[in-house]
Amino acid sequence: MNEYRFEDIYIGMEEAFSVTITEEMMSHFTEITGDINPLHNDEDFAKAMHHPSRVVYGMLTASFISTLGGVYLPGKYCLIQGVEVKFAKPVYIGDVLLVSGKVTELHESVGQLTIKVTIKNQDGTTVCKGKLKAGVMTE
Amino acid sequence: MNEYRFEDIYIGMEEAFSVTITEEMMSHFTEITGDINPLHNDEDFAKAMHHPSRVVYGMLTASFISTLGGVYLPGKYCLIQGVEVKFAKPVYIGDVLLVSGKVTELHESVGQLTIKVTIKNQDGTTVCKGKLKAGVMTE
Repeated sequence: MNEYRFEDIYIGMEEAFSVTITEEMMSHFTEITGDINPLHNDEDFAKAMHHPSRVVYGMLTASFISTLGGVYLPGKYCLIQGVEVKFAKPVYIGDVLLVSGKVTELHESVGQLTIKVTIKNQDGTTVCKGKLKAGVMTE
Repeated sequence: MNEYRFEDIYIGMEEAFSVTITEEMMSHFTEITGDINPLHNDEDFAKAMHHPSRVVYGMLTASFISTLGGVYLPGKYCLIQGVEVKFAKPVYIGDVLLVSGKVTELHESVGQLTIKVTIKNQDGTTVCKGKLKAGVMTE
């Protein structure tokens, strides 16, 4: 886990990690949220909607933005203040996602940074684009 | 689960549900994301940061927007396209959240609706505000 303080962070700073989407992540997400929507839970329904298999919850993909902030950038002292995400393409179980963040804004007076977030799959296709606004805790 | 089609939806339409945040939800979210940040996982660290106990992951609170779209509004035929959230106040384990959505925009040409999302705790304090953009699948 990184432990960057506000003064360690600069515009253009980048962090990235990759993660494989598993069946277990899907079940955990369903258990947390109670979102029993068939697009994510019923193979036949997903196929009827022209998908090869169940579609991964968009908000499950977005949940890795928590990891990006809380573990990588800034890491330990992260305080997530806001997130914006657009889901560009579907994600499926087994996909390997590369979650990347790049600092685009620093607001020193309020101790806030803005991170541009891009999530790509194993084919290099962008599946999710977004923005994370985070503070860096001091004490 | 609701099964609203685009033509059933009108500006001002509302849906809401409540959910109690549990320890288990927190463990599941950590398992999914790998976000081991101490603010959410270490009682002593959270206290040192002036919280009464571990803080619930913002993106866990935001994950109920998936349920709002996929189960309630529009429900079965929901296709989440984008989400914006601001975390206004901390959420703690045991909090009872009321997740509400109200349709504010309908774009018939692209079959997209915008839902204003408000998440309040048991004291009526708004902990999260946001916006959900969703399509309604036809086939």
